[in-house]
Amino acid sequence: MSIGFQLHARYGAARRGVLTTAHGHVDTPAFMPVGTAATVKAMRPQDVAATGAQMVLGNTYHLMLRPGAETVAELGGLHRFMAWPGPILTDSGGYQVMSLAKLRQLDERGVRFRSHIDGSKHELTPEGAVEIQDLLDADIAMQLDECPAAGRPRDEVAESMHLSLRWAERCRAAFRERDGYGLFAIVQGGVHDDLRRESAHALTQMDFPGYAVGGLAVGEGQAEMFRVLDVTVPELPEAKPRYLMGVGRPLDIVGAVERGIDLFDCVLPTRSGRTAQAFTHGGAVNIRNARHRRDPRPLDPACGCGVCSTVSRAYLNHLIRAGEMLGPMLLTEHNVFFYQTLMRRLRDAIAAGALAEEAARIRAQQAAGDIAPMEAKA
Amino acid sequence: MSIGFQLHARYGAARRGVLTTAHGHVDTPAFMPVGTAATVKAMRPQDVAATGAQMVLGNTYHLMLRPGAETVAELGGLHRFMAWPGPILTDSGGYQVMSLAKLRQLDERGVRFRSHIDGSKHELTPEGAVEIQDLLDADIAMQLDECPAAGRPRDEVAESMHLSLRWAERCRAAFRERDGYGLFAIVQGGVHDDLRRESAHALTQMDFPGYAVGGLAVGEGQAEMFRVLDVTVPELPEAKPRYLMGVGRPLDIVGAVERGIDLFDCVLPTRSGRTAQAFTHGGAVNIRNARHRRDPRPLDPACGCGVCSTVSRAYLNHLIRAGEMLGPMLLTEHNVFFYQTLMRRLRDAIAAGALAEEAARIRAQQAAGDIAPMEAKA
Repeated sequence: MSIGFQLHARYGAARRGVLTTAHGHVDTPAFMPVGTAATVKAMRPQDVAATGAQMVLGNTYHLMLRPGAETVAELGGLHRFMAWPGPILTDSGGYQVMSLAKLRQLDERGVRFRSHIDGSKHELTPEGAVEIQDLLDADIAMQLDECPAAGRPRDEVAESMHLSLRWAERCRAAFRERDGYGLFAIVQGGVHDDLRRESAHALTQMDFPGYAVGGLAVGEGQAEMFRVLDVTVPELPEAKPRYLMGVGRPLDIVGAVERGIDLFDCVLPTRSGRTAQAFTHGGAVNIRNARHRRDPRPLDPACGCGVCSTVSRAYLNHLIRAGEMLGPMLLTEHNVFFYQTLMRRLRDAIAAGALAEEAARIRAQQAAGDIAPMEAKA
Repeated sequence: MSIGFQLHARYGAARRGVLTTAHGHVDTPAFMPVGTAATVKAMRPQDVAATGAQMVLGNTYHLMLRPGAETVAELGGLHRFMAWPGPILTDSGGYQVMSLAKLRQLDERGVRFRSHIDGSKHELTPEGAVEIQDLLDADIAMQLDECPAAGRPRDEVAESMHLSLRWAERCRAAFRERDGYGLFAIVQGGVHDDLRRESAHALTQMDFPGYAVGGLAVGEGQAEMFRVLDVTVPELPEAKPRYLMGVGRPLDIVGAVERGIDLFDCVLPTRSGRTAQAFTHGGAVNIRNARHRRDPRPLDPACGCGVCSTVSRAYLNHLIRAGEMLGPMLLTEHNVFFYQTLMRRLRDAIAAGALAEEAARIRAQQAAGDIAPMEAKA
């Protein structure tokens, strides 16, 4: 029953494991590409799978508004709807109500809001969030939580964290247990060590099949995020998967894996792909830059993806300048592949007992920067 | 030397042949997806090939302006630049100068114009058009011609056709002969039988490796287009490939194949894919229509493409309504596959001596229309 999680290797706090769900297994540490509206933007599902991604994330807020959870259920659930047969995790919708919806009104019961698409009225309660994710057929559902904005006063963060604890309890009560399906709790508490510890303890007592760390990567900076992980992760049960929500840049992920995180999601590889930003072994590259205009070399010479093995920087630069859809398509494909390659390197290094060396190598590569520009033609 | 063309079967005026170029062979009758700016919009080259397309078209006008023919040549030619190893045909740029460029000035020498992108000044002469296509490394280059707008007076059409004949001569003289490469002439003359015959005769005398019929599908209607083909095609040499430029809708292609055309190109499958229009065995379908919103059936139940075998009309409708890039991507993929399937059916039918039956079947399927809407839920 619920989801499975086996740990196969450790290196310090880092873990190499396998998450087992109703729709297949996921090698951890894993990165989930974000498939907001039932599509990883600019990629076909078979091409997402070809990058090595085993699990994707769907956004409850977007899907409940369009096409609607009942419609997705009628059409056979999210896996069938978006032609992704593998595992899917959905968020609870709470975070996006706060960032996207209009006229939000939050109280003990839940949150009422108006759709950013058509202004229609909706409500999201802990019970409703669980029901919607059940209709979507998410392998892993997330509790409804409140994620306070960075910089809120401590008493507000504490109050919000306590509300999230009560909502966790209600979500747990509402969740329909099925083999291969699980509900994750979300640790909150901002940057306050005692609040994080209190949240982690209380949620651990409720015994969830997995735990997320929420409320990070909201502007606190990498050092502060790592500090919060150092405080929070040791409070979570060893045998359960740990998910750091909305993180992050490649070196954020390396540091979080070293601190014992098993699951990640972030819009960066996909969103960046649509704004000409590429992640490479030598760090970030803006392919729109004029220096790439006649550069026959691949985007990332150390990358084995279908983009880097077939087209030049000059071609990608041309596509972006010409406003061709293929530009974002290829950059997204490369970026998602790059993230999956990063996770594979980290998994292999943990299994091989060499995470410190591999992490140091990744950091050195990122710090070395992009390949030098081509010599100007005589 | 030049390109090769073998005819393997005939059915009335229709032919089943094989075109051989420096970058591979093309089974004819063939439809070339349009790859305007070195990309078949919204498709990766490997996915274009997977539809069965063997040859694509590139637009000289777009490529000379951005990234520039010299840049493409420096980067190894258009095949390598756009990662399309198969045959490529480029147009001469003349048609698009007339439809897109600003401040056009046309005389005996050629046409001067300003770029629609940045207003920069350019000139396209017969010799220049051939040189640019040589730099692009097109397997098949097209002569520079003038395509008069529909409805021009006869004397203007005659004058324009004679100018195109003189330009054909100049293109021929400028063309650098290489194995597997060829220059096609373009028959003009509007809807005037005698002008079409005169153009065809004069060009045949010059002995080109292939002949295009230009100046059609510019608003004259299908019946008039077929009538012009009935007059023009019999005047062209049997042993050379015949290319009907810019055509067309599925039944335009069926009728033109019956009249002896071997090659086609058109933006319809790709452009329509970006505006929610799909070509199906039951005719055109607008997938944005509300009737598809909860329809679990494939876009085209008779289609074997990767889209029709994996996702529903409801999903495609959702993607289009949500403005997701995957919508145009999947509709383009389906449409290009549909066109390639149409050509395969026509080729097989010619080879099997059953073109009349197959053409009648295709027309009946198109006339039958889309599958009936789903019953409304009780």
